[in-house]
Amino acid sequence: MAIRLGPNQYGKAEVRVVAVDRSSPRHTLVDLNVSTSLRGDFTAAHATGDNSHVLTTDTQKNTVFAFAREGVGTPEEFGLRLARHLAGSYDWITGARVAVASYGWDRITVAGAEHDHAFRRAGAEHDHAFRRAGAEVRTAVVTVDGEDEHVIAGLADLVVLKTTGSEFRGFPRDRYTTLAETTDRVLATAVTARWRYRAGDLDYDALFAGVRTALLETFASTHSLALQQSLHAMGVAVLEQFPEVAEIRLSMPNRHHFLQDLSAFGLDNPDVVYHADDRPYGLIEGTVLRDDVPPAEIAWQGTPGSC
Amino acid sequence: MAIRLGPNQYGKAEVRVVAVDRSSPRHTLVDLNVSTSLRGDFTAAHATGDNSHVLTTDTQKNTVFAFAREGVGTPEEFGLRLARHLAGSYDWITGARVAVASYGWDRITVAGAEHDHAFRRAGAEHDHAFRRAGAEVRTAVVTVDGEDEHVIAGLADLVVLKTTGSEFRGFPRDRYTTLAETTDRVLATAVTARWRYRAGDLDYDALFAGVRTALLETFASTHSLALQQSLHAMGVAVLEQFPEVAEIRLSMPNRHHFLQDLSAFGLDNPDVVYHADDRPYGLIEGTVLRDDVPPAEIAWQGTPGSC
Amino acid sequence: MAIRLGPNQYGKAEVRVVAVDRSSPRHTLVDLNVSTSLRGDFTAAHATGDNSHVLTTDTQKNTVFAFAREGVGTPEEFGLRLARHLAGSYDWITGARVAVASYGWDRITVAGAEHDHAFRRAGAEHDHAFRRAGAEVRTAVVTVDGEDEHVIAGLADLVVLKTTGSEFRGFPRDRYTTLAETTDRVLATAVTARWRYRAGDLDYDALFAGVRTALLETFASTHSLALQQSLHAMGVAVLEQFPEVAEIRLSMPNRHHFLQDLSAFGLDNPDVVYHADDRPYGLIEGTVLRDDVPPAEIAWQGTPGSC
Amino acid sequence: MAIRLGPNQYGKAEVRVVAVDRSSPRHTLVDLNVSTSLRGDFTAAHATGDNSHVLTTDTQKNTVFAFAREGVGTPEEFGLRLARHLAGSYDWITGARVAVASYGWDRITVAGAEHDHAFRRAGAEHDHAFRRAGAEVRTAVVTVDGEDEHVIAGLADLVVLKTTGSEFRGFPRDRYTTLAETTDRVLATAVTARWRYRAGDLDYDALFAGVRTALLETFASTHSLALQQSLHAMGVAVLEQFPEVAEIRLSMPNRHHFLQDLSAFGLDNPDVVYHADDRPYGLIEGTVLRDDVPPAEIAWQGTPGSC
Repeated sequence: MAIRLGPNQYGKAEVRVVAVDRSSPRHTLVDLNVSTSLRGDFTAAHATGDNSHVLTTDTQKNTVFAFAREGVGTPEEFGLRLARHLAGSYDWITGARVAVASYGWDRITVAGAEHDHAFRRAGAEHDHAFRRAGAEVRTAVVTVDGEDEHVIAGLADLVVLKTTGSEFRGFPRDRYTTLAETTDRVLATAVTARWRYRAGDLDYDALFAGVRTALLETFASTHSLALQQSLHAMGVAVLEQFPEVAEIRLSMPNRHHFLQDLSAFGLDNPDVVYHADDRPYGLIEGTVLRDDVPPAEIAWQGTPGSC
Repeated sequence: MAIRLGPNQYGKAEVRVVAVDRSSPRHTLVDLNVSTSLRGDFTAAHATGDNSHVLTTDTQKNTVFAFAREGVGTPEEFGLRLARHLAGSYDWITGARVAVASYGWDRITVAGAEHDHAFRRAGAEHDHAFRRAGAEVRTAVVTVDGEDEHVIAGLADLVVLKTTGSEFRGFPRDRYTTLAETTDRVLATAVTARWRYRAGDLDYDALFAGVRTALLETFASTHSLALQQSLHAMGVAVLEQFPEVAEIRLSMPNRHHFLQDLSAFGLDNPDVVYHADDRPYGLIEGTVLRDDVPPAEIAWQGTPGSC
Repeated sequence: MAIRLGPNQYGKAEVRVVAVDRSSPRHTLVDLNVSTSLRGDFTAAHATGDNSHVLTTDTQKNTVFAFAREGVGTPEEFGLRLARHLAGSYDWITGARVAVASYGWDRITVAGAEHDHAFRRAGAEHDHAFRRAGAEVRTAVVTVDGEDEHVIAGLADLVVLKTTGSEFRGFPRDRYTTLAETTDRVLATAVTARWRYRAGDLDYDALFAGVRTALLETFASTHSLALQQSLHAMGVAVLEQFPEVAEIRLSMPNRHHFLQDLSAFGLDNPDVVYHADDRPYGLIEGTVLRDDVPPAEIAWQGTPGSC
Repeated sequence: MAIRLGPNQYGKAEVRVVAVDRSSPRHTLVDLNVSTSLRGDFTAAHATGDNSHVLTTDTQKNTVFAFAREGVGTPEEFGLRLARHLAGSYDWITGARVAVASYGWDRITVAGAEHDHAFRRAGAEHDHAFRRAGAEVRTAVVTVDGEDEHVIAGLADLVVLKTTGSEFRGFPRDRYTTLAETTDRVLATAVTARWRYRAGDLDYDALFAGVRTALLETFASTHSLALQQSLHAMGVAVLEQFPEVAEIRLSMPNRHHFLQDLSAFGLDNPDVVYHADDRPYGLIEGTVLRDDVPPAEIAWQGTPGSC
């Protein structure tokens, strides 16, 4: 018959695992949201409900927690350990995808003298009290596909804004064009960036920090004639500074800030008062890549926002 | 240089257009969330901020509103009209993608006699007063790529549940498996389905209603040994009943309902009291397709949940 | 010292309990989100961390599940049973508040002949397969305060819209007024309504259905000169039809639908194309009550949107 | 007739105003979400749709934007200016409530040499490029009621966590109690705090910073025997350090982190691996106040989470 099962995968989504390292009085913690997916031969489960090939999603969840007991490390390394284990569990499992979101925590700074456990200097960072760092999320997507391994690092919801240094003009005008050209506008976006590494066994924390800095600095320092130009400059900066990165995909909504017309009230508005609008918003998506690195579409499968 | 711009697109996301048909006293309305994206040669905008190729996202928004004035019709038809227009605007624009979410409204039933405009029978549906139909959303994604056109219809957040008729057993057990087998469980999911039509010029409303019914009926009537089996049966039912459909992709989270252990309180729990858990959840994704229809990956580009 | 503990309460929020009645092959289910709060003398816990008065929130959760085993009934009755038990647990507990949100499920209609358990007529409702009814939520807030009991029923997120039969004019104009008067606009809102019963031991399901119908019918049939007028008419209708209701509080955001100006494209727009805006929105809140019923502010404590 | 209109208010909610101060090359910005409500005699609008007393919500929105043109200052001062103006607009308006949420932005630090406008030192903060500071929100609620003025400052979603220094034991056990006592648990919450000032004309920015620091430091340094104890200590610290504060209301969900049982996998779990659970959660709410300051319930009206 012409009707058949096509590509499929299954797994456990959003396992919220928090691991505390108490090996010194100065605790550290990792706070993760882990999603696993398996690929392979699951035809019998689909066709007849025969689950003999189905490593249950409950088992996948248990595996995440058990592996966290043995130490987490970076999101990328944790993902690699999990994906290798899951993909190698049974011969009918040919691949695994592990997506990790990591939430940051900063230490709370405490000025006082006596605390619950110990003396502490004025303005010292607390040993075991933390504050969530912000809405920004660090991401990692690890794919094991047979013998191949792919690591995509990333960040989401890095919200940035420039109050000047942004123009938008020179665009074509058709019957439906009413937008005025501008040489000075507010430019705001929430950066989602994902970059694929050329090889494994890297210093993932240092690379993440470096790429993030490159993205922020380039956004800030680019005199922008188009959000596309900012996006492209950000991607190029990452690839120029980090030879470990094969390609980067950026998704940047244009969060419009419209200058409010106050003339009806006898007021001018020399780029002072804006209305931040929710919807609609522009959405700019693009990839910057190296010509001399082979593509790896399997690494991106199942990851939204990859155009 | 080895670093270059790769795939990219841009557009206006989430244009919330509502159109009212007042051609008879019995009004109708369509309530849409429209997102457009353009593909083509936008290298100059990225490289140097030269916007001469950039049909602005503001213009795309205006186009959505202007086209709505000329009548909306089905989400698929509205998407086709917009995508054809946008893709054909300039010779450097090679393709357009239009995604439409459509929110349903039911008429309010009114029992009384006198209303603001007219006499009305007991229990009659009101001419111009409506109630939002639910959280479920009808979706359409239209892609024009050069000479090719693709239409994907769909629905999202169709939340369904069976109180019995669902088993889960016969799965392999490894070191990390603790799950008990069950011959009777609550099965709940929020169906996201997207199906690609083989050709255009169809009765999209009738097909949507038919596919939706097939999905619901098959979910209800399948004695489920695995959520994968339910998913597959639902996909097969759609393809068997609707030759117009080339392939269907389903994403079905397993919204776990755990039987609550009440034994500590001296109570049994014969499948009566459950805890509905938020996270983690299983996530089952799969495609059912026809062997004799050529694939069309371009049609799915940018659509999340397509594994 | 002048600094002291003031009003306080604590409890378990959002216990997601689902209970299935399997007493006949035609199953029914209730799907609830239950939050409990206790009031009383908890000074020692606050002052010194002495928990000897703290009936733990974990115990409150367990109580919700255990009580569900003995049958749920209406949200109001379930809340009353829980609140009475909790408030009477220890002599230092003087009151309890139980808030219940109830999610509706409709049976899936199945056309076919053979299903997993039994033969079924064409178009019959399935015995154990359900579809979530919509985003609308039924609510109940029960407060036990010493010897007093209060029951507030309600609904939230009942989204309604009229395409005509709504005007807005005759308002004062000051320096900051730019709004044009209109004799025909789209009126849309998401009704949150809470009504307090004068006494207990009522047919809560029938009353809920009746009040909901009165709200819907009155919204539909009122020719609205102001959203305030619609709100008031809805409240009056409920109190006139249901002597059991002492007062009703309504919160109705004005979800603006702005007529889109298409003149720049050479198009008129005779009340056809609107832009549904997210923010800002109007927010109209009001109470309709009986003069001859004593107020009961304690019944409303902790319930948002009560102005 | 016994049925009549009770308390009511109306206004414009969520006006998203962003104001940029360009008076020096080192720009600053304020990013606000402003909601206004009016109280007074609006009976005619409710009873008959006579809008002659209705200062429209559109006008209220315009007023927010117009006032922003003249400078914003602190959220409290902006709220006061708006509330005084609105409450004094017409003699039938007896009061106004203005709620402001303020989103923080940090300057982006740029290491490089040449940027779009000017030379900049290594590691310098950029003049006009910013990053959203986090999910935490600063809030202000200003109420003008006849001759009286009330200012409530606050913050929401300040997410904090301690990895140790938290116990929970000594609680009573009833039939439904299964929770084990613990001398070491993870304690996490999202603090919402609102504090009322005794008088106006204060240095609101300095006070906000001071109160926030007191909350953070006290959470961190309190060895917690109950979340109630932490809440109380935080409130007392604020009132002890800031005589300007009349009372503080705190709402602190207990975001449970459950130690994961790994024994089935042959693993111990010495307080290392936790599952962060979504629902249900504990909810602890309480007020700390001064005995010698008169209460002002009108100041809290319409503000959720005030028990």
